[in-house]
Amino acid sequence: MIIVLKQEANQVEVNRLTKKLQSLGVTINHSAGSTTTILGLIGDTSKIDMSKISANQAVEKVMRVQEPYKKANRLFHPENSIISVDGEKIGGKRLGIIAGPCSVESEEQIIGIAKRVKAAGANFLRGGAFKPRTSPYSFQGLELEGLNMLKAAKAETGLPIVTELMSTKHIDAFVDDVDMVQIGARNMQNFDLLKEIGKTQLPVLLKRGLSATIQEWLMSAEYIMSEGNENVILCERGIRTYETITRNTLDLQAVPVIKKLSHLPIIIDPSHAGGYTYLVEPMAKAAVVAGADGLMIEVHDDPENAWSDGEQCLTPDEFDRLMDKAKRLAEVEGREI
Amino acid sequence: MIIVLKQEANQVEVNRLTKKLQSLGVTINHSAGSTTTILGLIGDTSKIDMSKISANQAVEKVMRVQEPYKKANRLFHPENSIISVDGEKIGGKRLGIIAGPCSVESEEQIIGIAKRVKAAGANFLRGGAFKPRTSPYSFQGLELEGLNMLKAAKAETGLPIVTELMSTKHIDAFVDDVDMVQIGARNMQNFDLLKEIGKTQLPVLLKRGLSATIQEWLMSAEYIMSEGNENVILCERGIRTYETITRNTLDLQAVPVIKKLSHLPIIIDPSHAGGYTYLVEPMAKAAVVAGADGLMIEVHDDPENAWSDGEQCLTPDEFDRLMDKAKRLAEVEGREI
Amino acid sequence: MIIVLKQEANQVEVNRLTKKLQSLGVTINHSAGSTTTILGLIGDTSKIDMSKISANQAVEKVMRVQEPYKKANRLFHPENSIISVDGEKIGGKRLGIIAGPCSVESEEQIIGIAKRVKAAGANFLRGGAFKPRTSPYSFQGLELEGLNMLKAAKAETGLPIVTELMSTKHIDAFVDDVDMVQIGARNMQNFDLLKEIGKTQLPVLLKRGLSATIQEWLMSAEYIMSEGNENVILCERGIRTYETITRNTLDLQAVPVIKKLSHLPIIIDPSHAGGYTYLVEPMAKAAVVAGADGLMIEVHDDPENAWSDGEQCLTPDEFDRLMDKAKRLAEVEGREI
Amino acid sequence: MIIVLKQEANQVEVNRLTKKLQSLGVTINHSAGSTTTILGLIGDTSKIDMSKISANQAVEKVMRVQEPYKKANRLFHPENSIISVDGEKIGGKRLGIIAGPCSVESEEQIIGIAKRVKAAGANFLRGGAFKPRTSPYSFQGLELEGLNMLKAAKAETGLPIVTELMSTKHIDAFVDDVDMVQIGARNMQNFDLLKEIGKTQLPVLLKRGLSATIQEWLMSAEYIMSEGNENVILCERGIRTYETITRNTLDLQAVPVIKKLSHLPIIIDPSHAGGYTYLVEPMAKAAVVAGADGLMIEVHDDPENAWSDGEQCLTPDEFDRLMDKAKRLAEVEGREI
Repeated sequence: MIIVLKQEANQVEVNRLTKKLQSLGVTINHSAGSTTTILGLIGDTSKIDMSKISANQAVEKVMRVQEPYKKANRLFHPENSIISVDGEKIGGKRLGIIAGPCSVESEEQIIGIAKRVKAAGANFLRGGAFKPRTSPYSFQGLELEGLNMLKAAKAETGLPIVTELMSTKHIDAFVDDVDMVQIGARNMQNFDLLKEIGKTQLPVLLKRGLSATIQEWLMSAEYIMSEGNENVILCERGIRTYETITRNTLDLQAVPVIKKLSHLPIIIDPSHAGGYTYLVEPMAKAAVVAGADGLMIEVHDDPENAWSDGEQCLTPDEFDRLMDKAKRLAEVEGREI
Repeated sequence: MIIVLKQEANQVEVNRLTKKLQSLGVTINHSAGSTTTILGLIGDTSKIDMSKISANQAVEKVMRVQEPYKKANRLFHPENSIISVDGEKIGGKRLGIIAGPCSVESEEQIIGIAKRVKAAGANFLRGGAFKPRTSPYSFQGLELEGLNMLKAAKAETGLPIVTELMSTKHIDAFVDDVDMVQIGARNMQNFDLLKEIGKTQLPVLLKRGLSATIQEWLMSAEYIMSEGNENVILCERGIRTYETITRNTLDLQAVPVIKKLSHLPIIIDPSHAGGYTYLVEPMAKAAVVAGADGLMIEVHDDPENAWSDGEQCLTPDEFDRLMDKAKRLAEVEGREI
Repeated sequence: MIIVLKQEANQVEVNRLTKKLQSLGVTINHSAGSTTTILGLIGDTSKIDMSKISANQAVEKVMRVQEPYKKANRLFHPENSIISVDGEKIGGKRLGIIAGPCSVESEEQIIGIAKRVKAAGANFLRGGAFKPRTSPYSFQGLELEGLNMLKAAKAETGLPIVTELMSTKHIDAFVDDVDMVQIGARNMQNFDLLKEIGKTQLPVLLKRGLSATIQEWLMSAEYIMSEGNENVILCERGIRTYETITRNTLDLQAVPVIKKLSHLPIIIDPSHAGGYTYLVEPMAKAAVVAGADGLMIEVHDDPENAWSDGEQCLTPDEFDRLMDKAKRLAEVEGREI
Repeated sequence: MIIVLKQEANQVEVNRLTKKLQSLGVTINHSAGSTTTILGLIGDTSKIDMSKISANQAVEKVMRVQEPYKKANRLFHPENSIISVDGEKIGGKRLGIIAGPCSVESEEQIIGIAKRVKAAGANFLRGGAFKPRTSPYSFQGLELEGLNMLKAAKAETGLPIVTELMSTKHIDAFVDDVDMVQIGARNMQNFDLLKEIGKTQLPVLLKRGLSATIQEWLMSAEYIMSEGNENVILCERGIRTYETITRNTLDLQAVPVIKKLSHLPIIIDPSHAGGYTYLVEPMAKAAVVAGADGLMIEVHDDPENAWSDGEQCLTPDEFDRLMDKAKRLAEVEGREI
């Protein structure tokens, strides 16, 4: 951590600051130039609250040098993490392909789609039972009934289930019935939910918030991990920018950035990123060759009548074609689907 | 709602779409140009899910004409709403001035600051007991103990209490002890929390999410109101942009925009918007003359040793000076503090 | 174009508006609902200035249905455009690979790098002679001397030259010596420059502005094309977002979006998008499989001592490896390098 | 400047880097922690190109401590600059009020509006003769003829003229006829234009680019000043964000930020920021009390028929009322209009 002092800071203030810093267990390196004086803090600064220091009257600004996350940091865990989810693995050579409808609509629907996506190469089934919708007047999901339909589809196909949790009050039901819990973009900083899920060992698919920096995203992973649950998989699903012709802007650079900073697996959700069917195939293929550990794709057998997100899902036939292409591209990259 | 058809849409698809739309209870107006055909939907479209229509194969795009919120909409409620909070009112001639420390630190601290801000003109006391922090290693608040300290400060000064709720499990405690509950920016789309608070009659200070559009913000107000709680006050606290020299960018235009679209009161939080003390006074004054119904200001008697946000709070003396200025400006505008 | 009328608009105002619209040569379709009245404009609205209509007192808002560009619009030119640049082609089956240093530094340097990138598969040579730098104190390019060095490299290798033009006063020199002129991101809306280059037939590589919407970008292409020069190639090079861990956010979705809206070729510049060497290979590969018509890559034989942008360029060896990979991926996609 | 070394950097690389840095005339302060080594550079680093250092193999990242601008920097020029424009001054106690139509349309129009705005309190006349328009099919301005009309209005009223320059080829005409030249947002990084205008002594109104950081904006001022022209006035006119309900987001915090970092005057253009008439008055008043040195306001006597931007201009009567209010607010702030 670097502290830049104000030009007009007096010696009394600087001494007071120095004493405070030393009490935090760090060593201080002092560099005085003609117009600027800098203090370099040596030691473990990950638990120092920057805002406490920048409030000091002698301080012009504070700059962090070390990343503030520990458990999610590749520096302290150089090998890739491979997360086991009911026998399947995410983070290794084989990509995790999560597919299924936006919303669970009926047992028949979810079983039918599960069979199709499994045949095409998916190794996880997605389907929303609890739905975070911008409008209170939109369909909010079949809730616990939807969870039971997902279980029926798993019984039929063996595919592990991935579905979103929106409230701490359903954690027990998720621990019992779900193989990987999704924390949605809107809840990425719902710290109450992160802490509670951190107390379980349930694998967590942590979606990036709509305007979360990569550092904030890893800090949210850290919330879960610091409670004891290290089974975290990151999912980039588009960020909010000024461009409105697509639903969000897919930040595909997040893949190599996360690979550099963290040991956690990262997958891409091209369906929510772009918001339109025609963007899914090109972005899914791009994700595979950029080094993502998996994909999350919305598939529906009747998009026109889907209860939600019909404009961004693939039909099973389109998903088949995507998987064919993706397999060949993964092979060039030394990965497999 | 306007539906633009694809150039290549065939008659069968268009007929199917038309029938579907009619079943939703709207009248359709058909305009055919040489390259574009447009369907205009007449009637109540606020409960139609745009994504269900845009998934249709004949549809190029869907554009909303009417705003999707009803209860928050000024169109259906032309007068300003005035919200009563334990005898005080927000939304009328007199501004609501909410002041106090970022975090409640001790009974002595909160009582001392409450007395000072009341003397300067504040009519509400703020203080965080549950703190949403980016890092799990930062101070997370005194929690229920903090709530008790706020009660002691209210007993001493009579100032109604405003404090943040982060979890549905504390709603009962908040209904008992708190006069206005704050929903923080990170939880603006925590729909589970919005629905639960909507079932009470507790006044809600709904902060705008870091990257929420004004429409999404009003839709979150709608979540609360549609459950029966119409005591919603909006709070702009800065949005995330590419500019990093300030913590966030204060969107002061939100004041006249909200006044145009909605009847709900809106207040401004300049402390969180800018993130630095030197920005608070100019932006607080700007908010007053731009038509805001109130201010939320962080005040701490010892910013250097504040447990959080010390770099953005005012001292009681600085707050005194701000209130003096703000009163004179409010008078020019026909308002009062 | 859709015009939503104000609820309180009176008949006199609406009649005046209607007359004005009819004088612009469009037919008006009138849809009156209980709370909203909509006018649908049928006909060629691409030359109607939206702001002239939205100033009308009867108008609540104006929404465009048709895209405002004509010559760049795929609607009126369904086939892909293939642009010829000194014998090479961009927009067809074979990708255009533009490689070379950020700045031209010496004849020896540029010839050396040109030979290496040609051997690896590049079919165009880039190199900056006029450099747009944020600071007036940074190296501004070798200017016309740099142009001569590029010519020497072309004489040696046969690679057509791509380089940036910053001022109308050098247009003649560029027409004489350069095979494709680059308009940089900062000049995307330098309309004076666009109009002048539109009067030549020089192929133009039009970079997307840092915060330009895709529609604004196509309107800038339209500026060039409407003057008579239809040889425009678009180049996505990253957009500005709130994320600062990368230099810019690469908007790879722009590839399928442009392919849908326009017939113009689009290439990707992963060097400027990410700003760091480690991001170039994954994003270049992603661009190939997402359907881009080419790549623009910075290559330098001694990045540590490059005069500009050393932190984002590949060495010739790294470029060799990228080209090997890219060729195999292009093949899977039915393209070639 | 702070250089963070890579953990794996070896001694040979570090020595090479150290030698290179010393050759740039700075002193190096070395701080080694357990996981991070930091080099602090002491001395004048404003002319060091950060990207040249970050390309070094031993370097993890480079962080700037000192601001890279010198002439625009308040550190080296503590007093406010007051710029003289044809006898009027901007930057002192009296606010600079620039008003007039978006486009000059006729001599009669511009003279009529000039008289009205002067009577209301404006001390500068604006009017566009060269218009940067997103579409090539929109009205592009009356050009030199428009300039003559502005001169006629000045002859009649004495108000100094402010108008936009888009091309270096008109600089001589501007030096002869214009009192303050406006560089528009789209040209803020048209470095060719900045350098040429820097060679004159014409006062420059430098608008902030749509997505320019405050630092980049000051660097563009530095381009002009480093050529010898220190008569620069900054103008904030809204930045691009994800919010689309307003044309741009007015970054009013820029006022106190600029006052802290620079000695240059700053004015606010609320017309272009919001894009709608109803936003102009509240934001203009907010700017006055936030400490701005002036306002730029679009005024048109017949907004419905304005040739451009009619939806964001005030009528002369609305401008009268705004000035009345603004005068009383300025008085509270110890300023005058």
